[in-house]
Amino acid sequence: MSWRSKGDDGRRTNDEGRRSFVVAVDLGGTQIRVALCDARGNIVKRLAIPARATEGVEAVFARLVATMRAVTDDWSRVRGIGLGAPGTTDPWRGIIFEAPNLPGMIDFPMKARLEDEFHVPAFIGNDANLAALGEQRFGAGRGVANLIYVTISTGVGGGIIANNRLFLGARGFAGEVGHQTLEANGPRCNCGNVGCLEVLAAGPALERAAREALRAGRASQLRALTDDDPSRVTGALITQAARAGDALAREIFARAGFYIGLGLVSLQHNFDTELFVLGGGVAIHTWEFIYPTIQKTFDEYAMPSMRRGVRIVPAELGDEAGLLGAAVLAGESMSQ
Amino acid sequence: MSWRSKGDDGRRTNDEGRRSFVVAVDLGGTQIRVALCDARGNIVKRLAIPARATEGVEAVFARLVATMRAVTDDWSRVRGIGLGAPGTTDPWRGIIFEAPNLPGMIDFPMKARLEDEFHVPAFIGNDANLAALGEQRFGAGRGVANLIYVTISTGVGGGIIANNRLFLGARGFAGEVGHQTLEANGPRCNCGNVGCLEVLAAGPALERAAREALRAGRASQLRALTDDDPSRVTGALITQAARAGDALAREIFARAGFYIGLGLVSLQHNFDTELFVLGGGVAIHTWEFIYPTIQKTFDEYAMPSMRRGVRIVPAELGDEAGLLGAAVLAGESMSQ
Repeated sequence: MSWRSKGDDGRRTNDEGRRSFVVAVDLGGTQIRVALCDARGNIVKRLAIPARATEGVEAVFARLVATMRAVTDDWSRVRGIGLGAPGTTDPWRGIIFEAPNLPGMIDFPMKARLEDEFHVPAFIGNDANLAALGEQRFGAGRGVANLIYVTISTGVGGGIIANNRLFLGARGFAGEVGHQTLEANGPRCNCGNVGCLEVLAAGPALERAAREALRAGRASQLRALTDDDPSRVTGALITQAARAGDALAREIFARAGFYIGLGLVSLQHNFDTELFVLGGGVAIHTWEFIYPTIQKTFDEYAMPSMRRGVRIVPAELGDEAGLLGAAVLAGESMSQ
Repeated sequence: MSWRSKGDDGRRTNDEGRRSFVVAVDLGGTQIRVALCDARGNIVKRLAIPARATEGVEAVFARLVATMRAVTDDWSRVRGIGLGAPGTTDPWRGIIFEAPNLPGMIDFPMKARLEDEFHVPAFIGNDANLAALGEQRFGAGRGVANLIYVTISTGVGGGIIANNRLFLGARGFAGEVGHQTLEANGPRCNCGNVGCLEVLAAGPALERAAREALRAGRASQLRALTDDDPSRVTGALITQAARAGDALAREIFARAGFYIGLGLVSLQHNFDTELFVLGGGVAIHTWEFIYPTIQKTFDEYAMPSMRRGVRIVPAELGDEAGLLGAAVLAGESMSQ
């Protein structure tokens, strides 16, 4: 980068040997998490602060910088910075084009701004892409060269690893796996598309299905759990009902599993991957209810030659995936 | 490869300079086409023979070899062989796992068999993948690093070029773009999946839609064109009716265009490409009727950030795409 004079090549070489840490950042709409990581993905120190996104981009950035300064007092030992952001990013130029949960963060030159502050190379990626990288290097996908990570929570996102590398697409936007159509005449998704995996199988879809069934007079333990007020339905309550054996709740998860399974079939036919890693609250907390239908649907509908040997497993790293992926990005982008 | 002794490195260097041709093969279920091509993709000589697939694999292979011998009498000037096969292939080991239109061609070691015959490196690929490569190098995708080729005829196939290379997936099966679900409750496809792009928008789907409408009593010029016998409906007749302004025929193409457009939206969200090249009989012969709906659907349903600047164009090379792609494969695999 730019802060060293041309004459200090010798010192730089020594310096590089000492630079064994990276600073990883998970820039969320509600929380900013910062970690100091070693080369093996161990988190040495971590800090988290509320994003307070409504205060504006510069206030968020100032708090981010202060938190990064607080995570280590020896920046001479930091090789690089990796940052995951929600939304569309240019991973080559390190620009955050748009982050819906961070109002005003539009065309924000995050890489340049961080490098100006810390005089260390910075690398920016989409949060779901980085979670894919984290799971591949340190989680459920260790040792697998090709995998697709799908996170299912309030939305559905994803990241594609092909041949040990993130598949980024022409502009870095690839892997929006939640926005493939599965029902051409289905409901409109927030993204503008119709009948997307996200609008059919993410958390809000499950809650909507439960509310509609209750309003239509369907018997369910959810009536008692919500004091007979369908508007009080939450994902946690549907999960609780499913655990207690409630038929409606189990049907709702099976239906979600069917759509997720069909989504994986389409992904398999397009990408020919080896492993699907499913993360996010809906996948992890309801695994016992959705996984059987996901696997059954995949086995029933994927082409035999293309489904052979392909595995579907839960993510292992939870919220850490994105943070560890950011650490991977910082470490590996530099050694390329 | 294996046929030169270790001592002739000097001769090999001279030899390579003279080796300016490749032999490209398009191994179809009905026809085998062989071409001698120069490095710029010009076809110097071409031959075609019927495949006569029912005579069995060894008979087909013997005719293939004889035709390749006939395309040039100076094999010392041939650098390599590229062959496109219909079906699933292992592009690294050059094995044809299964080619539905070539009965008995199962786990066939095409690369090894051709190298044994011709003592020249041979490279094998899926036919739609090679057509994508042909269009990218010599056709509608010249100069574009990222594109998705979709061929729509009796089936829907495809090939994905990412960063100037074929995207092959873990085992070389990627790009089965015709087999992504668009209607979870739609008809079952031959591939085993439900509501695939292929079962909704390929030629047979259009004919089925026309027949069903006629049987349901719908007025259409197709009645006269088929002597009021719905079983006589063909794609050519639907196209003829559409040209004459027939409302039913135009509706059928618009419906196909809607599904194709939705398929491209899903592909765009997954792959973030720059260009869609549409080939195959249905796309090319009915472009004027399907393209407007394809483009309209893409514009309406793809995320604004992801559709910006993305173009949808007809293929330029027709039947030549696969043959030229095989030539590219032979030439470039060797120089890597």
